[in-house]
This record gives sequence, C-alpha cells and structure tokens, in this order.
Amino acid sequence: MISPKIPSGFRDYLPAEALARQRSIDAVVGVYRSFGYLPIDTPAVEYLEVLQGKGGDESDRQIFRIQPGREGKEETGLRFDLTVPLARFVAQHQNELEFPFRRYHVGPVWRGEKAQVKRGRFREFLQCDFDLLGVASVAADAEAALVIAAAMTALGAPGFCIHVNNRHLLAGLLERQGAAGHAAHVLRSIDKLSKIGREAVLEELQFGPRPNVELQRTDPAEYQRRCDARERLMAEATAAAILDFLTIDAGSNDATLALAAERVKGSPRGERGVAELARLLEIFAGAGAPAERLVVDVALARGLDYYTGTVYETMVEGCAEFGSVCSGGRYDDLAGLFTERRLPGVGASIGLDRLLAVLAHAGAPGKAGPAADALIVMFDERFAPLYAKMAADLRAAGLVVEVYPEAAPVKRQFAYASQRGHRVAVVVGEDEVKAGTVTLKNLVARAESKGHAPGDLAAAVRAMIAAG
Amino acid sequence: MISPKIPSGFRDYLPAEALARQRSIDAVVGVYRSFGYLPIDTPAVEYLEVLQGKGGDESDRQIFRIQPGREGKEETGLRFDLTVPLARFVAQHQNELEFPFRRYHVGPVWRGEKAQVKRGRFREFLQCDFDLLGVASVAADAEAALVIAAAMTALGAPGFCIHVNNRHLLAGLLERQGAAGHAAHVLRSIDKLSKIGREAVLEELQFGPRPNVELQRTDPAEYQRRCDARERLMAEATAAAILDFLTIDAGSNDATLALAAERVKGSPRGERGVAELARLLEIFAGAGAPAERLVVDVALARGLDYYTGTVYETMVEGCAEFGSVCSGGRYDDLAGLFTERRLPGVGASIGLDRLLAVLAHAGAPGKAGPAADALIVMFDERFAPLYAKMAADLRAAGLVVEVYPEAAPVKRQFAYASQRGHRVAVVVGEDEVKAGTVTLKNLVARAESKGHAPGDLAAAVRAMIAAG
Repeated sequence: MISPKIPSGFRDYLPAEALARQRSIDAVVGVYRSFGYLPIDTPAVEYLEVLQGKGGDESDRQIFRIQPGREGKEETGLRFDLTVPLARFVAQHQNELEFPFRRYHVGPVWRGEKAQVKRGRFREFLQCDFDLLGVASVAADAEAALVIAAAMTALGAPGFCIHVNNRHLLAGLLERQGAAGHAAHVLRSIDKLSKIGREAVLEELQFGPRPNVELQRTDPAEYQRRCDARERLMAEATAAAILDFLTIDAGSNDATLALAAERVKGSPRGERGVAELARLLEIFAGAGAPAERLVVDVALARGLDYYTGTVYETMVEGCAEFGSVCSGGRYDDLAGLFTERRLPGVGASIGLDRLLAVLAHAGAPGKAGPAADALIVMFDERFAPLYAKMAADLRAAGLVVEVYPEAAPVKRQFAYASQRGHRVAVVVGEDEVKAGTVTLKNLVARAESKGHAPGDLAAAVRAMIAAG
Repeated sequence: MISPKIPSGFRDYLPAEALARQRSIDAVVGVYRSFGYLPIDTPAVEYLEVLQGKGGDESDRQIFRIQPGREGKEETGLRFDLTVPLARFVAQHQNELEFPFRRYHVGPVWRGEKAQVKRGRFREFLQCDFDLLGVASVAADAEAALVIAAAMTALGAPGFCIHVNNRHLLAGLLERQGAAGHAAHVLRSIDKLSKIGREAVLEELQFGPRPNVELQRTDPAEYQRRCDARERLMAEATAAAILDFLTIDAGSNDATLALAAERVKGSPRGERGVAELARLLEIFAGAGAPAERLVVDVALARGLDYYTGTVYETMVEGCAEFGSVCSGGRYDDLAGLFTERRLPGVGASIGLDRLLAVLAHAGAPGKAGPAADALIVMFDERFAPLYAKMAADLRAAGLVVEVYPEAAPVKRQFAYASQRGHRVAVVVGEDEVKAGTVTLKNLVARAESKGHAPGDLAAAVRAMIAAG
C-alpha cells in the first residue's frame, strides 16, 4: 500500500478552505476586471534560459527543474513568479497586443525554498498580479494604488496600510549629499537598523560593513585590522543626514513630503520624486479612496535593481511581522532581456495564499458564506426521477441543490444536510406524492412546513432561506 | 538577448482567449456548484510513488519529473490527471471529509506526450473533474449524466451526445456465451473494427490477434506458421454473437435495451446492467434533461480496468474525429492503492482546452462577450483626480471602467477604446469642468451626448450601453 502524502512545503485544500480561497480569487479578479485589466495565461513550464538570472543565484537555486524527457533535451523549469513570464510573453506577442496593455494573471508559482508553513509560506503558492504596460505616468501609478486598496477591501482585510515611496527621493538626497551611486549600499545598511542599532548603521554608512562577526571571536586582532582597513565612503555628517532622512517620521504624509522636499531641494531627480508622490496622493484621495490607507515611507526600498519610480508594500494591520502581502512598483523596462522595445509599466502582485494566512491570523472572517441551499432527501428510490426534476427546477432558479444520492436512513441525510450547510431540506415520500405536495424542513429554525405546491417550490425554498 | 519563446507543446493565452476561457471555466464551475459539488485543490507536484503505475508504462513515461533539489532527495513529478491526486487526497483526508462527498477540481495537468496542437492536444491542459464519492447508486450515475449535459449546455456546445454504457452488459453477454473472462480481449478486438473489418475481427475474436504484420512481409512462411499455431479462444458462433451484440444499432435507446435484455437474459450481472441503464435513462428524462442527448452505446469500453459500471463519453456533434471531450464512469474502489477503505464513486472529467478547440472547430461562438464598458478619456492630466473619481463611481455601479493612463492624443484614445470593446467614452475637458457636466460618446452608434450631471453618470452610461 502506498502512503498517501504530499511533498513537504506543499498543501492540499479541503472543500471549505478551497471554496473560501476561490471566493477570494473571484473577489480579486472582480476588482482587476472592474479596472479594465484582462487575463492572460502562460505555461507553468518555461525554458531555464528564460527563468535563470532574473533574481540572483538564490532565486536560480530555487527553481524546480524538469528532468529532460524522452524527446526534448531542452532544459526547462517551473516559473517562480509571474513577472518573468510576463516579460517573455510581452516580448513574444508584442505585435498582437494593444498598448497601453492592462493584464492580470492569477496562477501558481513554485519556489524550492524552505517552507514556513506557519507564516503562510509554501513551495507552491498562488500569485495574483496586475500590470499596466506601455505608459509612464503618475496617473498609472495612482491607479495601481487604487487597485491594491480596492483588492484589499474586497478581500475583507480589516485594516491595511499601503506604504508608498519613490526611488527618485533617495537618489535626490544622495545627489544633494554628494553620495550619488551609494544607493544600494545605503539601503543595505539602513535595512539593518532594527538589528544592529543607530550607531552601528552610522558607522557602516561611512565605512561599509564590518568583516564577518565570526572572525571577531576566532581572531580578534585580525578582525580589528580588517575593520580599520576599510576605506571611508562618506563623511560622518553625510551619513547622519542620510540616516535622519530615512528614519523621518513626520506624522503625516504632507509633513513627510514637506520635509523630503526640503532635503532634496536643488536635485531635479529628488524634486521629481516629491512631485510624483504628492500627485499620486492627490489622485488617490480624489478618487474617494481611503486616504489614511496610503502612507509615504521614504525608507521603503523594494526591488532595488528592478523598480525605478514609485514602489508599494502592503501590510495588514497588526500583522507587520508577516511582511508585505501585496508589493509592486514602477519599472522603466520590463522586457529588456527579450526585446529591444522599451516597455515601461507599473504593477503589483498579491501573494494570495500568504495574504489568506495573514487574514486568518488577524481574525478576518474570510469569504466563507453558505456552501449550499437545499438538500432533496432521497426518501424512496422509486421517486428518484421526481427528485431529479425538483432539483433541476430549483437549480434553474439559481439555487445550489443536492439530491442525497441514495436512500440512506433519513436521520443520516438530515445530519449530512446540516454538516454541509444546507438551510432547507425538501422531503417527498409516499404521502406527498399521493397528495401532489412537497414538505419543506427549515434546517436552521428546525421547523417543518407541509403542503407546498411543486410549481412554487423555488419561491417557497427562497422564502424559507430568507426567513432563516 | 534571450529569445522569447516557450517549450513545444505549451501555449500562451492572449487576453481575448484567456477571457473566453475563464468564462468557460466559470460556466462549468457554476454547473458543478449548482449540484452541490465543492472545490478542492491539490499540489501540482506529487511523489512519483503516488503518480507511477496508475496508467501503465506509457503513462509513467509521460510524467514530467522534477529534478531533486538541494534539500530534498525525494522523487517527485507533475500530476498527469486529477484522479490519482483525488485518490491520494481522499485516502489522506478521509477522516476530515463527509461522505457522500461531492467534489470538483479545476486545474492544469501535464503529460510529456507528443502534442497535437491542431487537435487541441497540449502537454499542459486544464481538466475540470467532478466526482461523487461514497455511494453506489444509479441515482448518482444519473446525476453524473445530468451534470455533463448541464455543463455542455452551459459551455454553449451547439450539439452533443453523451454515449453511455454499463460494464455489466458485456460481462453478462460473455457469461451467457460461456466466454466470461474474455472481456479485455473482446474489447481490444472490437476496437479494431473500423480498421481491419468484420471478417478479421471475427477471426481475432476466435483466435486472438495475428502476429506482427511486418513478419508477413519478411517471412511469410513463419507468419503463417504462427497464425496457425494460435489456440482457439471461442467458438465461431460465440464470436459472431458477441460481434453482433457490440455492433447493434437498434435505432433507439429502448430498442437497444430490449435487444440487450434478450441477449443477456439469465445472467444476473447482465440483467443488472440492463436495469441500471434503463433506470439511468428514466431519471435523466425525469429531470427534464434533453433525453435525445443520451445514447446507449453497448460497444463503449472506456477504462477497462478502472471503471466497473456505468461509463460515459461525450462527443460534440460533427466533431467525432476529435474524440470524447468529457468522459467518466463508475468505479468500485477509488483509493485502493492508498487505503483499506473501499470508496465507490462516479465522476467525469471535462478536458476544457480540447473542448474549447472542438467548439471553435464546430463554429460555436464561445464565451466572448464585451470585455469592457466605459473608457474615461484622459483629456487633461490636471483633471486626473476627477477622472479617478468618476471611474470609482462607475465601478461602484458594477461597470468595467478604464481611465486612459496618460494624456495621449484623443484620437489615439478613441481608437484604443474601440479596439478594446468599450461601448462608451466619457469626456471631460476644460469646458465640462467649468460647466460641471460630462460629455458621453456612444462608441457603437458613434453619437455624442453632452451635458450629463456627474451624479447621474452611472445611469447615463448604462442607458447608453443598453441603447447600443
């Protein structure tokens, strides 16, 4: 006998969970569609050449590779996100697409990383991406924030916060501080703030990272020698100004932007970043979206090499430790590895499985809802054609209807109906057939109601469901 | 530069196609749900141990194997159908499931077979399965036929025919003919009828298949020797009776069943098969389903080793050469390889991608429909917050609305709107902002209508769409 189990990091979805998940997908897709985004689909399997080298060595190692089969000697693997396939897709089909091109894509991706099941991190997970390609405008960036907010609301997030930043801001500050070109180094150092503290970050900004801490234990002298051997990258005042800027908490978006404007003044790039952010906030609020959900966060780095303007991260309130559940940003050139054509765009990705885990953690009710409406009791197999007819009539009226599929003891059928969430049971036995009537049972109120006419069945069932 | 292409046998779905496909999926799922089936989901990746040995050597060779990664030395592969994962799933979660268990599963499967793109056969394709587990009743079998018919209708199949048979019929006939145990041999021989003709099939029924035809060319004497060396498996009269039975075309289901009843009379198994088929037809017709869509086909073999009772195949009218687009049947023991528990059930699988290819071939319109409702023209970027607000209001009223994402020439924006299928364009420039009104353009009738109040925008757009 074979042991029924699945590889670690993967998971099954039982019916109640799968139904709630499908409803969440439908909610997200409904939002994407309402903004005019259209679906595309691409294969799970792509050439390794397409997949590799897009996210660094670690990302390459995480690719699930397919063993070459009988025919093909081609090297292929499973996609690890939906962005690389989008870049390949757009390059391949650019002459069949109309720009501006709004597309969404909902599909599983696979990463051979260490699964963190409790945090909702699996090796197979569903991504819901949307992107607007072919334009570089703040209006498009604002739309992305609106889509994120609408999707989070549709998913029933009790509270959420979209952190927004603009890559031009830091570039402008560094320009002003005479430290242009140090962006990557700065962001890596700032990232360690909560771990190593302000003083250590200040030192690292000026001199770069310290040598491996292991060395400090095994060979303190050599460790010190290497620390001292580091070259100065920027003045102490510069480092302090940068650190101050990236940790400002001005209390409001307006105050943050005012402060940022002051710090980047004179740098065209920095001023552009401030103006774009201000305009984005204006359009977001103008659309009637909840302005308090959008928070300017000048330290937000996100995809250093990839994103070039606005960037987004979305946190569910009270669940910051789970990280961002919807991230994205603006890029200048999506498909540069595949085509000469420059394709700017903006988009974001909802990691749905992680988001659902976060929402469950936050106590959000999820998209449960009743799974079924009416059970037709199989009282007597002789009447199976009649039961089938009643079920067909109720379905035609839009109800979810099951016929119990065998003449099991009636008690067991009622127990099944309650467990499955049916609100009404339809009972027709010898007496009812003779009288030409139908008996209904309200499974919520536990009340029986006899003598319904078969022609009015749908209305009667609907009324009973409404009465609860 | 990397060439943007996908492995052979795989495909991309462009927006129009992907949208129509999604609508087809929604239609099928709507039918499954209305019968009370609930979704489940399982990983794309399963242990090889779970996948292998379920469909013969050829099936094993078609499995896409995953190369073992850094951590796991486990052998895994991509699922090649949704039935094997269902068996594993039900065995693994049997104590968490309520029986009777109605589940559907929509998901891609992968087979490394030779792709036949023109016939809609790909290496990755979507299956839509439904199964009702835990009961063995004709009512359940009839429900499966009703689900198939409802799904085909919902998918817009212009005409279709569900071929239905019962494995007990042939078993009964062979019992009566003293040829019990020859079922596999008989079905393999009958299968060749259109290729080798009646006489050759009669001979093969009696003596088994002839030696490799190649030998006839290279060594005619040896070929004849081997032909003559075959042992007789059944009498000529028996073979003739079987062939007659399996090729009966009585003209109607009733006549076919009457003839079958006569031939299997005295065999309890055969009589059971006739009774079950008759009852299935009765319930199907009783439900008000189109009785002419269900055709008893006593030669239908389908899954010889797996199915044990009723079997189904579904053909789209005029597209018989594509084969069955929805097949299934009853089985006694779904998960016998994974659990001691016997789980009988009945179900079927729609190969959606193939079905859509067949429907397109048959000229069925597909689930196209309009992709979008209204485009808000980006007349002037200054008014972007206002455009965003109008869009939000229209979306709240249930419309699919795009804001053109930059202030491109208006002509280009109108061309985009038409290409994308928008019915209405919303135009607000300096004049409208001053007057506090909105101008609408009916893109279908090519008519303009000025002076709409922003508060009534949704109603005005809906009216214009309705007017066409």
